[in-house]
Amino acid sequence: MKNHRNTALKLLAIAGVLLGGMGCTLRSEPMQVKDLPSWRDTDARERIIDFVEVVTDPNSTQFVPPENRIATFDNDGTLWCEKPIPPHFFGILARFQELTQEDPDLVKQEPFTSIGEFIETQDPAALKLFIDEYHDGELLKVVGQLFGVPFANMNVDEYAEWYAQFYRDWEHPTLEKSISGLTYQPMLELLDYLRTREFQVFIFSADEGAFLKLLSNELYGIPPNQAFGSTIKTQYREGEIIRTEDGEWLDNWQGKPEMIQAHIGKRPIFAAGNSNGDFHMLEYVHLQPGPHLSVMIHHTDEEREFAYDTHTDQLLPYAKKHDYLIVDMAEDWDRVFSE
Amino acid sequence: MKNHRNTALKLLAIAGVLLGGMGCTLRSEPMQVKDLPSWRDTDARERIIDFVEVVTDPNSTQFVPPENRIATFDNDGTLWCEKPIPPHFFGILARFQELTQEDPDLVKQEPFTSIGEFIETQDPAALKLFIDEYHDGELLKVVGQLFGVPFANMNVDEYAEWYAQFYRDWEHPTLEKSISGLTYQPMLELLDYLRTREFQVFIFSADEGAFLKLLSNELYGIPPNQAFGSTIKTQYREGEIIRTEDGEWLDNWQGKPEMIQAHIGKRPIFAAGNSNGDFHMLEYVHLQPGPHLSVMIHHTDEEREFAYDTHTDQLLPYAKKHDYLIVDMAEDWDRVFSE
Repeated sequence: MKNHRNTALKLLAIAGVLLGGMGCTLRSEPMQVKDLPSWRDTDARERIIDFVEVVTDPNSTQFVPPENRIATFDNDGTLWCEKPIPPHFFGILARFQELTQEDPDLVKQEPFTSIGEFIETQDPAALKLFIDEYHDGELLKVVGQLFGVPFANMNVDEYAEWYAQFYRDWEHPTLEKSISGLTYQPMLELLDYLRTREFQVFIFSADEGAFLKLLSNELYGIPPNQAFGSTIKTQYREGEIIRTEDGEWLDNWQGKPEMIQAHIGKRPIFAAGNSNGDFHMLEYVHLQPGPHLSVMIHHTDEEREFAYDTHTDQLLPYAKKHDYLIVDMAEDWDRVFSE
Repeated sequence: MKNHRNTALKLLAIAGVLLGGMGCTLRSEPMQVKDLPSWRDTDARERIIDFVEVVTDPNSTQFVPPENRIATFDNDGTLWCEKPIPPHFFGILARFQELTQEDPDLVKQEPFTSIGEFIETQDPAALKLFIDEYHDGELLKVVGQLFGVPFANMNVDEYAEWYAQFYRDWEHPTLEKSISGLTYQPMLELLDYLRTREFQVFIFSADEGAFLKLLSNELYGIPPNQAFGSTIKTQYREGEIIRTEDGEWLDNWQGKPEMIQAHIGKRPIFAAGNSNGDFHMLEYVHLQPGPHLSVMIHHTDEEREFAYDTHTDQLLPYAKKHDYLIVDMAEDWDRVFSE
């Protein structure tokens, strides 16, 4: 008996070495764990699972091969909390303050005047530059003033270092969470769920892509080359990439599907967003002949997060009319934050 | 004895099922096969292997973690043959001919006049628009005229379909190869070699990115979201992405490192190119404190491919001076083409 065991153990060991040596890796996915555990047993969870099961079933007429399983997500208000202002804006405001402390005369000029007023009053109306009525020609100007001006002439390594420092000990003013604690647990689970089904997940945000790339892996396990957003013009000079103050691309509205196509070269079959800026991305997914799912995250949870319908007047009625999956955060999520 | 074997086999089978069920995958990499088999045993092959071994060795002071093992490649003249003109240009010229057959009056205007003259005479001087002396302001105009005009107002699916049709039975005029036969076998092996060492490989080409994305997987096993190039402005309209005739980005010269940073968010540690347009990409890799390798593919093989030094007057002397790896195609490659 002892001999049997010895032989068997040796063979098992040999098998282990062989498999290990040939690059065998064990997926860390635990067995028997419920999919999307922080999603309640409502229609929302069921619709996501039904969709994913159908497109990944080789026997289904709706089967989509892995290389075409593209899912794109908005970030602010979709993957993490955007209230009272998107997390990145705390960094931007701090940088504006830093600059005006160094040179107080800056407040005499825009965007420093408006930003300074906002910091003092906390009144969004002070952000004259960034309020609702954008006109076509001014959009890239806003991108430049918001993302470009505060970090102009830094090289990309200095930019990365500035943000790493700033968010190291930063905490959300009311939620008392670190930056990684602002992500939505059900959405992290959704990203994982899709990835284990061989989806490729991407972020397309109106926020600056260069900022998202610094955090996308830590926050979402999404590599920086799959996280995109608005861009600032840069200049290559002798081994360095220098930031300018000029906006180059606004990744919002029509800009989202245009950027998706330019970067991925394929139309996503799944997309999630939460406000009007995501309208065209979700519509691009919706208006295709093949299987697809457009998801709107609806902020209905006053108690655990914030309840609001700002910038949803275009998206929400369209989403209802065309049977998008509208996720009711209060109803559909058992837990909101990841930490 | 028989019993021993049975028990052992059963346990092995159980181990197999367990590992299989847990998502164990065996890498298909064959054992005992020489790395980079189409590279001769010259310094070039040795330098590549030495570099890769050092950066992937966890005990080396030059170790680079997998997430930072970024390698970027030019395409035309680096991964495949670009003579007498880059393979994509046969498609572009055919499309110009198609359009002028539909509407002969077009030849009265540029770029149809120059293109038509070139098609007739095969004289590169006819391409007035695209000859050497570009000026800053005209670069994007050239991108628009070459890549934009012939496919303006097509949606991206029609564009993809047009190229799929065109290259289905196309053959290179002198080499008698299909489009996939124009790739360099040693470079395909290099891509594979890097990938099995957990490098992420990207293409950054002056050619149009939208075209590269159609073929990158078939030609190189590179997914479309890792193949980039110059871009044309597009317009999203009700579920469709429509091409315009306007150039948006020239992915050449300084544009290469700028686009690399904007898309990947990291500096590559390895890059390969063959002409002046790659100068800044290779320099960006070269001028970093950490381990890196800049590679220039030098077209020296009159017999098996083409020998030429067009557009290398800036790159070649700099590459020599700074000890880039200069690959001598005639000396260093045992085989040139993949088919």
